[in-house]
Amino acid sequence: MSRGVLRPGDRLPSVRAFSRQQDVSISTVLEAYIWLENRGAIESRPKSGFFVRVPFAKSVPEPRFQTPAPKPANFSASAIVTEVMRCANRPGSVPLGSALPDPQLMPNAKLNEILRRIIRRHPMHSAQYNFPPGIESLRRQIARRALAYGCSLPPSEIVITSGAMEALNLALRVVARPGDLVAVESPTYFGVLDAIQSLGLRAIEIPTHPREGMSLELLERAIRKHRIKACMTMTNGHNPLGYVLSDDYKRELAELTAKYDVALIEDNLYGDLAYGPRPPKLAKAFDQKGNVLACASISKVLSPGFRLGWIHAGRYQAELERLKFISTVAAGSLPQLVAAEYLETGGFDRYLVRLRIAFAEQVRMVSQAVAKYFPEGTRITRPGAGYLLWVEMPKKIDALKLFRAALDANIGIVPGPIFSTTGRFSNCIRLSCGYRWSDTIDRALVTLGRACDEIGRQGTSG
Amino acid sequence: MSRGVLRPGDRLPSVRAFSRQQDVSISTVLEAYIWLENRGAIESRPKSGFFVRVPFAKSVPEPRFQTPAPKPANFSASAIVTEVMRCANRPGSVPLGSALPDPQLMPNAKLNEILRRIIRRHPMHSAQYNFPPGIESLRRQIARRALAYGCSLPPSEIVITSGAMEALNLALRVVARPGDLVAVESPTYFGVLDAIQSLGLRAIEIPTHPREGMSLELLERAIRKHRIKACMTMTNGHNPLGYVLSDDYKRELAELTAKYDVALIEDNLYGDLAYGPRPPKLAKAFDQKGNVLACASISKVLSPGFRLGWIHAGRYQAELERLKFISTVAAGSLPQLVAAEYLETGGFDRYLVRLRIAFAEQVRMVSQAVAKYFPEGTRITRPGAGYLLWVEMPKKIDALKLFRAALDANIGIVPGPIFSTTGRFSNCIRLSCGYRWSDTIDRALVTLGRACDEIGRQGTSG
Repeated sequence: MSRGVLRPGDRLPSVRAFSRQQDVSISTVLEAYIWLENRGAIESRPKSGFFVRVPFAKSVPEPRFQTPAPKPANFSASAIVTEVMRCANRPGSVPLGSALPDPQLMPNAKLNEILRRIIRRHPMHSAQYNFPPGIESLRRQIARRALAYGCSLPPSEIVITSGAMEALNLALRVVARPGDLVAVESPTYFGVLDAIQSLGLRAIEIPTHPREGMSLELLERAIRKHRIKACMTMTNGHNPLGYVLSDDYKRELAELTAKYDVALIEDNLYGDLAYGPRPPKLAKAFDQKGNVLACASISKVLSPGFRLGWIHAGRYQAELERLKFISTVAAGSLPQLVAAEYLETGGFDRYLVRLRIAFAEQVRMVSQAVAKYFPEGTRITRPGAGYLLWVEMPKKIDALKLFRAALDANIGIVPGPIFSTTGRFSNCIRLSCGYRWSDTIDRALVTLGRACDEIGRQGTSG
Repeated sequence: MSRGVLRPGDRLPSVRAFSRQQDVSISTVLEAYIWLENRGAIESRPKSGFFVRVPFAKSVPEPRFQTPAPKPANFSASAIVTEVMRCANRPGSVPLGSALPDPQLMPNAKLNEILRRIIRRHPMHSAQYNFPPGIESLRRQIARRALAYGCSLPPSEIVITSGAMEALNLALRVVARPGDLVAVESPTYFGVLDAIQSLGLRAIEIPTHPREGMSLELLERAIRKHRIKACMTMTNGHNPLGYVLSDDYKRELAELTAKYDVALIEDNLYGDLAYGPRPPKLAKAFDQKGNVLACASISKVLSPGFRLGWIHAGRYQAELERLKFISTVAAGSLPQLVAAEYLETGGFDRYLVRLRIAFAEQVRMVSQAVAKYFPEGTRITRPGAGYLLWVEMPKKIDALKLFRAALDANIGIVPGPIFSTTGRFSNCIRLSCGYRWSDTIDRALVTLGRACDEIGRQGTSG
């Protein structure tokens, strides 16, 4: 299409026909079409199929790429984070805030079936610790799955953690000491910034393109200028930008950090949710020297309450395993047993296909609603994975005011400034599209659009 | 007895008679008798009842109380800890090492019954996070139980953690910054020393009496001399010494630390396992200024693999709650639900009575075997709680050598030097009596005794 074979208005081959023609599975084609649709390249018309469309990008642009010079952190958003988290607990609010999938989408029945089986077969399932590195059968399944990401990781080198967030914290602790600098994308997940700060480290933000990731040129310049100890990155399904980076980028990032002996902490939390037809590679796949610490979640898409993640810490493995023991002794036994069996026999891949299709659709619906209801000049990302949208509103719209107005209307959103330590992104918000599209969500977005207008007017008059 | 009404050889009233006579429950009397028995004051004779005996203490003395001047840490035992932990994973070894109760003693059937019920009633039990402070029904149960320890703690101020070890780590992080000094008992649990070191803090060891705890006089002197930020203590069921301290001691400790504005982190991991007829108070019970951070486990005696603990962090609560979120987001959902229901309806108190009786008996059997098989000059503690024994052997017996000899014989024990940062306790070991007494354990203690003789001979000849 980008080569010009098909033009706006042309009909694409049907999913079935294209599947036969290219000898790939129907679900792969469907995913590819939905991926294209999400990027605004094609559109589906009920009962007619898929058509090439005027790119969505032409109607609502993507956020701007700005390049302020990286400086060590000078701003703490933790008070706002506390406020945001408090609201995340509020039952019954419209769930556009917390980055959580709809519980209805999860394989609860299947997991409960496995749970019952484990209780029956191993009644003493939790009577002992499963000391680090964790249950072997689970580590084997993780290693098997990592192959799809281009990573050959021996099960013995994988450490199970109490969620991906623990993996990130442990990774930071083994590579850096208080006072050290850690390069991060900007914007980046506020939990990462908070973890860095709480460990006495300092973040240095590298300008990040909303689709092409952190500028490697500016990263290299920052490394040369400052003594940077580690770099924290989300190459697949960035939070909040949603991009999936190319293999070339990942190779370059791995080589660049290795060259300067900067540890690379790669957070693959949303990698399983990449819309593309194939799992994207990790920067870890290009790690020659054990310099990359790959972190990921197991529970995020299965059952967040399970608290299961993992890490391959490269040359830091021994120290990481020890630190895991010192910090929380072991990950929960039952979740490890359940996840191991689910990954082996539960149809995880089929489930992920369904999930990706659902999220891509939900992201599309929210994007369209934002385009419709939000003020002119609003820009939105084009995620390549997951269920997060980053919305850049006109300058005069204060995201913190919008966050509080949303709260009053019982709508959860996350204000942009907490994704930075620089005070930037004051006119941005993150919307989670983890829940099924509904009239409630539609109405909430109408309310948010109106609140923007109101805040804009106050801004002009005040 | 200590008042001289009964003399050695005299028979005590039967449990039933004494229960009627004093109007207390049979289990209370039984616990009291077993407590006395464990301290060597009385002995049971099959089918005859309990008799006053020549105190056990006269045959095998308690470890010595030594008082080297407290100095900041200069020794790291982490390499040995790693070795010890690696062996803890070894299946089939004689379990005198890891501080774990026998899985056979746990209420597995009851917990599984509750698990099945939760799966049936709340099929989406784990589909969302239970953000800090954690599930309310569990915090209510914890608050209710804390009353027995003399603590009135509002449920809203209790934070659920992923095990007690996380609680201790978080407590250290909210009260101290890298470089700060933390006063600890000596010996103390190696995990505490490792946590202190891994956070960039420094331990300063206060001489500790094997039955009367850390010297408060020397603690005060150390506080005056060094800038100590926090004090970490186990007032009930110390690991490894096993003592339970008096109310007066706890009041004095709480007042002393408050006076000098030193945060008191109180680890009540084994408090539920105190042999005495009544739950012992906590230093927290005497906390006037929110200066005490009380940490405890829920899973340790129920199901260690559940990974559940809690903390009341006094005036540090808000920061602690935030740090819990940053570190591991939330504790596991399913364990929280199960524990809440078990504490409410499962007969936890009855279970604890059974457990205490079992542990007191196991400690007694191991003590007697050590007295029989270990070299002359060996000293052992008289625990008032839990299932840990601290054994001080003659000076010439190197505990690390004994640890490795034990390993070769597939017996787990923990060498003394890792309970200190000073290199002390080179002739001490910790034995866990968490498992039911058996011929295997008896034989293992014979083997250890012989290994001691062998090491002693080498020491003399070498």
